[in-house]
Amino acid sequence: MNPLVTKKIIKFQSEKFTPIEDFIAVEKRIKIFVNDEEIVSLSASPLQIKELIIGFLITEGILKGDWCPEKIIIDYDEKEIKAKVLLEGFVSLDGKTITSGCMSSVSFITDLKVKINDTLSVNAQSLFNLFRQFQLKSTLYRTTGCIHAAALADREKILFIAEDVGRHNAVDKVVGWALLNKIPFQEKIMLVSGRISSEMVLKTAKWKIPLIVSRAAPTSLAVEIAENLGLTIIGFLRGDRFNIYCNGERINDKK
Amino acid sequence: MNPLVTKKIIKFQSEKFTPIEDFIAVEKRIKIFVNDEEIVSLSASPLQIKELIIGFLITEGILKGDWCPEKIIIDYDEKEIKAKVLLEGFVSLDGKTITSGCMSSVSFITDLKVKINDTLSVNAQSLFNLFRQFQLKSTLYRTTGCIHAAALADREKILFIAEDVGRHNAVDKVVGWALLNKIPFQEKIMLVSGRISSEMVLKTAKWKIPLIVSRAAPTSLAVEIAENLGLTIIGFLRGDRFNIYCNGERINDKK
Repeated sequence: MNPLVTKKIIKFQSEKFTPIEDFIAVEKRIKIFVNDEEIVSLSASPLQIKELIIGFLITEGILKGDWCPEKIIIDYDEKEIKAKVLLEGFVSLDGKTITSGCMSSVSFITDLKVKINDTLSVNAQSLFNLFRQFQLKSTLYRTTGCIHAAALADREKILFIAEDVGRHNAVDKVVGWALLNKIPFQEKIMLVSGRISSEMVLKTAKWKIPLIVSRAAPTSLAVEIAENLGLTIIGFLRGDRFNIYCNGERINDKK
Repeated sequence: MNPLVTKKIIKFQSEKFTPIEDFIAVEKRIKIFVNDEEIVSLSASPLQIKELIIGFLITEGILKGDWCPEKIIIDYDEKEIKAKVLLEGFVSLDGKTITSGCMSSVSFITDLKVKINDTLSVNAQSLFNLFRQFQLKSTLYRTTGCIHAAALADREKILFIAEDVGRHNAVDKVVGWALLNKIPFQEKIMLVSGRISSEMVLKTAKWKIPLIVSRAAPTSLAVEIAENLGLTIIGFLRGDRFNIYCNGERINDKK
């Protein structure tokens, strides 16, 4: 499904109105069903939907464990997307009641007890290289100015990039891709285009990914949680600069 | 409570690491209780909390109607903020079960049937003036690069501005302020710093505010919903330009 649509709009510039066609980012409601029970709705870009559903359901603890359901049926229609996850065998649904009205960047992780001891060691030049690759591959952002990106990388290259109208969805898609493809999270790096809130940190730390890098800023709660869990935060990576907010020992040219 | 904290971080620039002190936006968990029952948690900036709670609870339909509870007790502690709304007399809690884990930019509005017939008429120059005022008043954004703003304006001036780490929270605060101060929404304008998603449109249209203006882009679903409800969307207002996405008849110098 196309993540962009063209729309006739009116542009005002230098005191003149001109009708033009412009690209707009598609936002779709995605209703997630598990064995016919509707459990949650997300608002997302209609791209990498399987990855989104797996990443969201497992990261948020709605499905327990780190296995992947194999059968996911995705129905597209004009109004919304229905994703049906068929589960055989045992599954725990965590005892939570999720209203069908919960939409968009809902997070159910409230408390996380992990210790990230990952031995990743990376130098500044590698981070600049990775972020350049990341930005080159964020094609939808460049077209619409309205879509966030997240990527999983090792020290040399981007392994997978996801784009979405929601910051959290992009991270969930990256995690979902890794789970579906059995890619281990050790010594990996999460790159994100947007601000780092506590939820972005929790979603990353849950998988013990040791480093999150953004061109934007983190919040205080994000830094506090990351500091305790052992996650390194790098923000404001722009041009030849960045800021290390916590656990800087993984940046190995640090003097 | 201070919306910013200073933190010792390490800055890397031109191949050198330097320890510096930098401002970070405070993000706090705010647990909302109604008559001792915990009903939802939000992640937000610790500013304008009463406005946030009123705006959120009433806009999302968790409290019915457009009245305001008069007694709200706000307890601050290091870890979180507890806001207790005391309700006397009748109130309907909408029959929804909201898990305590629902965090941040949760939206429960899924369907909205209003028709916005507001006769607001505004010219391009007024919009540029308003947006300049809005940006001048967005002081936290300029300090941290990490905080969103929303404001309610009439054709001449900003009436109230709210800032928050969450885009939706800023809009809820603006609505909460108007409800608390019995300011009518007729012929008003909602200004926002961030992208216009479907939820931003629903939160604005619910109050029949006729115009939403942003320096960023709307999504397809936002435009579709706004078009049907009669809400005007202006995006990409930057310098001497903007785009009209729908219901442009309210821009009165349009030829």
